[in-house]
Amino acid sequence: MADLTAPAILLHAPQLGENIGAAARVMLNFGLTDLRLVSPRDGWPSPVAEAMSAGALGQGIEVQVFDTLEAAMAGLTYAIATTARPRGLEKPVFDAVGAVSAVRDRPGKAGILFGGEKSGLPNEAVALCDAILTYPVNPDFWSLNLAQAVGVFCHQWGASEGFGGRFEGKGEGVGAPASREDLIGMFEHFEAELERAGYFYPPEKTPVMITNLRSALVRAQWTEQEVRTFRGAIKALTLGRGKARVKRED
Amino acid sequence: MADLTAPAILLHAPQLGENIGAAARVMLNFGLTDLRLVSPRDGWPSPVAEAMSAGALGQGIEVQVFDTLEAAMAGLTYAIATTARPRGLEKPVFDAVGAVSAVRDRPGKAGILFGGEKSGLPNEAVALCDAILTYPVNPDFWSLNLAQAVGVFCHQWGASEGFGGRFEGKGEGVGAPASREDLIGMFEHFEAELERAGYFYPPEKTPVMITNLRSALVRAQWTEQEVRTFRGAIKALTLGRGKARVKRED
Repeated sequence: MADLTAPAILLHAPQLGENIGAAARVMLNFGLTDLRLVSPRDGWPSPVAEAMSAGALGQGIEVQVFDTLEAAMAGLTYAIATTARPRGLEKPVFDAVGAVSAVRDRPGKAGILFGGEKSGLPNEAVALCDAILTYPVNPDFWSLNLAQAVGVFCHQWGASEGFGGRFEGKGEGVGAPASREDLIGMFEHFEAELERAGYFYPPEKTPVMITNLRSALVRAQWTEQEVRTFRGAIKALTLGRGKARVKRED
Repeated sequence: MADLTAPAILLHAPQLGENIGAAARVMLNFGLTDLRLVSPRDGWPSPVAEAMSAGALGQGIEVQVFDTLEAAMAGLTYAIATTARPRGLEKPVFDAVGAVSAVRDRPGKAGILFGGEKSGLPNEAVALCDAILTYPVNPDFWSLNLAQAVGVFCHQWGASEGFGGRFEGKGEGVGAPASREDLIGMFEHFEAELERAGYFYPPEKTPVMITNLRSALVRAQWTEQEVRTFRGAIKALTLGRGKARVKRED
């Protein structure tokens, strides 16, 4: 499902292979495949990056390594710099949703830049970009792990693709909902057994007690199978307690 | 800025201290502080978790350790299980935006559950939850790193808090925009020097060439300072090339 129009991810002077590998993994998780490394401190390839990528680096991610950011930007028609720090540069500032929209609104190939672990992107790198991406961080603890910063953008990209992951077409909640008459039959069964058990006391409170029970139970949005299961449970509890002579059905 | 109404993050049988620490870091990045561990494989405290947390574990994250998920859910009034796999259980299925909305729509304290690295959440844990959170993953490479999964939710929480991180109140792009007359003055200066340099050829193309240049340059949304800088650049290029006798001003 690699999307050739998905933006490239550029890591500027990344230090730790662990973070490069984790970034590759989360890119592929959300359908991005074009990873560009500018001067990775510990060289390339990196066994530790491969281990952390959980297979992404052999399975779909295409890595290119460059000496300079300028070379790594070849082919890009739009670039966004990720930073937590205002730079005093005149750029539009986007959140993750806005950055994804900006990429989608433009023809051509976009790149999203992330700075290295130690000090982020230098101003010279930000100046080469059209816009800034920043996250709604805690001002008292604002420094994100590099791969986490990549992951937040990539998740937003995946969300914009409109696909539902592994739930697609086989979502939860597809069991047939119980009809109102099934539900009311279940209530009446429950209430009849409660009546026999002397639960409704004093008798004049019976209507309000029934209303409260029904109001709570109805919120569970029962399926047909769940109604059968619950009626079986009522029968099991009441078996041998008097008139009830039923077998567990479900 | 810790938000006492922010949901708890519950890690069910996490294996690697690295991931616990990384989860703690990204929680605090986005203002969550209540971290509950159910049977962490390698025990607690964990020096490697502390190292990976970049200070979060000593600085704002409150960790509690429990033997069972049931105990860890004490005090929660609403719980969401994060999973990439359909379970055949009747639950609402949310994306990250939907999960944050669901938490915000309810009074009380919510918890978001994440399963361990090896096999995620068991069905018994999902059954204890009100709803499911899932991400728009690549179906061919769907397994997220545990801390990344935590990070995606936490970012969405931070976004819903409506704070702008370190850009708040000091956004980029606040330099005074150039007035139209400043901009037109810059264009006329530029075009006059181009005229002197013999750039407009053939002469009958001059109007369309000027239109094209102005159309491109105007898109840059100049500030007053940038107009001054660019006029200085024009002067520098033309100095000594004829009538221009000016000093660099900016």
